[in-house]
Amino acid sequence: MTVQGTSREQKPATLPGSDTGTAQVVTILGAGAMGSALATPLRARGHHVRLWGTWLDDDLLNAIEAGGNLRTNVPVPAGTALYRVDQLADALEGAGSVIIAVASAGVEAVVARVCQTGFDLSSAQAALLTSKGFARKSDGTVHLLTDAVRSVAAEYSPCAVPLVGVAGPCMANEVAASRPTAAVFASHHRECAEGAATLFATATYQPVVSDDEVGLEVSAALKNVYAIALGFADGLSEASTNAVPYRNLKSALFSRAIFEMSLITRELGGQVTTVYGLPGVGDLEVTGLVGRNKVFGSHIGGGQTAGEALSEMEATGQVVEGVPATRLATALTEQRLPAHADQLPLLHAIAGVVDEQADPYSTLVGAALTPLAPGSDSEGIVM
Amino acid sequence: MTVQGTSREQKPATLPGSDTGTAQVVTILGAGAMGSALATPLRARGHHVRLWGTWLDDDLLNAIEAGGNLRTNVPVPAGTALYRVDQLADALEGAGSVIIAVASAGVEAVVARVCQTGFDLSSAQAALLTSKGFARKSDGTVHLLTDAVRSVAAEYSPCAVPLVGVAGPCMANEVAASRPTAAVFASHHRECAEGAATLFATATYQPVVSDDEVGLEVSAALKNVYAIALGFADGLSEASTNAVPYRNLKSALFSRAIFEMSLITRELGGQVTTVYGLPGVGDLEVTGLVGRNKVFGSHIGGGQTAGEALSEMEATGQVVEGVPATRLATALTEQRLPAHADQLPLLHAIAGVVDEQADPYSTLVGAALTPLAPGSDSEGIVM
Repeated sequence: MTVQGTSREQKPATLPGSDTGTAQVVTILGAGAMGSALATPLRARGHHVRLWGTWLDDDLLNAIEAGGNLRTNVPVPAGTALYRVDQLADALEGAGSVIIAVASAGVEAVVARVCQTGFDLSSAQAALLTSKGFARKSDGTVHLLTDAVRSVAAEYSPCAVPLVGVAGPCMANEVAASRPTAAVFASHHRECAEGAATLFATATYQPVVSDDEVGLEVSAALKNVYAIALGFADGLSEASTNAVPYRNLKSALFSRAIFEMSLITRELGGQVTTVYGLPGVGDLEVTGLVGRNKVFGSHIGGGQTAGEALSEMEATGQVVEGVPATRLATALTEQRLPAHADQLPLLHAIAGVVDEQADPYSTLVGAALTPLAPGSDSEGIVM
Repeated sequence: MTVQGTSREQKPATLPGSDTGTAQVVTILGAGAMGSALATPLRARGHHVRLWGTWLDDDLLNAIEAGGNLRTNVPVPAGTALYRVDQLADALEGAGSVIIAVASAGVEAVVARVCQTGFDLSSAQAALLTSKGFARKSDGTVHLLTDAVRSVAAEYSPCAVPLVGVAGPCMANEVAASRPTAAVFASHHRECAEGAATLFATATYQPVVSDDEVGLEVSAALKNVYAIALGFADGLSEASTNAVPYRNLKSALFSRAIFEMSLITRELGGQVTTVYGLPGVGDLEVTGLVGRNKVFGSHIGGGQTAGEALSEMEATGQVVEGVPATRLATALTEQRLPAHADQLPLLHAIAGVVDEQADPYSTLVGAALTPLAPGSDSEGIVM
């Protein structure tokens, strides 16, 4: 079915009279917030957009079909073709590019399904990954989500997937509504990111190209963790009896988060400058203003335990990705940065709060205000 | 007079039974928000605190004397001695340390008055400067406010002033109410900053020491400029007719601001890592949430011209320091970074908006979304 009556499009072709380059079929996997939102810049560029819903997305597709959108409240643009879970092969037929936009926990399963249809991801111009988080291998080690995608794809094809991580401050409803947005497209293979950026760029959606896939993936995954701490400060402010907020604390937590993100990024082989740009500072800024991880933290700042806050949110269907991301990030740093444990007090404080092993106030305030030990590997950051 | 009936204290002495080190007389110059707020940590440490009001501060002192506070809404702590404008010599007699906390436009005049009383700033343990901005010399060149203080003091004494810049995310009402706060104390002479930090540190007010006075002063002055752009995005959100906000734009502006602040800092001889820590990222975060510069920008985002917004705010006694700071920052970069004009699109966009020379929306969005030219001196920051 196709939104607003446009017939299902077929094989791509250059649009006559278009000055936006060659239009192609772009298949978006996952009909949630970001998946549905990216139809907006892609349709604006004249691409043939197919939006496939996972086994969890039937309700989302029903709403989109009816002209609404449960996730963004913004209808998808005309001409967006919708595909149900059992129509994956059709959705992928002839696709020039693919966007993986499912919840992080479902990424590996969806990539396996894609490969099982016989579609060769390595043949695509670009395979973009907007899902963010870490993944755990069967041996227990934690790795980046882009590496997880490559691992699954390698089981089906020896050729490299032209994988591009997408991050930056991109609230999906704003992308859907053509609000000005700068995103970063990063790939170990810069030319892949450049090709993908060429497909997406519009007057209001600006992809910026980078080869620092590691820095982008680490920043994007960790921002959901540190947003819990930022939300905690907001929760203290909301519960403040004398109307004096805790914004200084929030900003100190923000600075400390950026420091820890830069340390982890560097140790994993990424570039700290990525953390200081759109994927780190930029995305943490917006993630600390809105979103479920921040809300989860604010409930704790308001006095709930982590368990109470999580139960309440899950009861209304809200997934708090920062909770599993905190555990994976802790495991990752224990595995890959064992010598730097002393320099990640805020990550450990959040882990203690999430697992109800620590008093939230004293633990988080302590992590925010304790200067790094003299001589510690602070990279000279002033905090 | 002294708040809450404590008699006027005299020469400092070690407090009996105190574990906080030697108490001393600390004279705060300026009874506004930050001046009055710093009485809280200083009194908590047992210091003899004298709060002197400038020729503009009589109303502020009257309110404080009556147990209120027009700027922070938090009463000053018991034992804070109040001094009127004509009592400056008394306020300084025997002072161990001095804090300059007047509006930036008044800093040079107040320092001159201090010197004219015969008080030798170079004899103090520390002279702290919480005022933030740039200053213009008589020859038209723009320099840092700490350098302006040194220039004035040098006219009266050949000895060096132990000057320490204070910055970081410090909303004054929160400092006054003992909310957790991390500040940065920076001086070319690190030992001066260390000595000052020793005087101030409490369980909730944490000074972090740095020798990057340039980075701290540049970050603190520029954050008031860039906060105008952040406010603009908030104003667009508030005026949004379909309830879709402009948070992606705000975060893109935030990232661009941090990049430009780091470039200017580096070219002026400061350390970019200062910009990525509490004085830059941290302070811009809170300054983009609240404050008069952000509010000024939000009025423009809501459709007012800069002139209308400024008139409305000035009519209610609100000083928008970011407006003169924008002009001074523009002049400073033209004088000191002429080769980098192309890399400061956001600064120039804000200047164009403030002076009503440019359409705010297209100018600011353009500055936020236009990637830096390939090969430009971006330090690898991803934006």
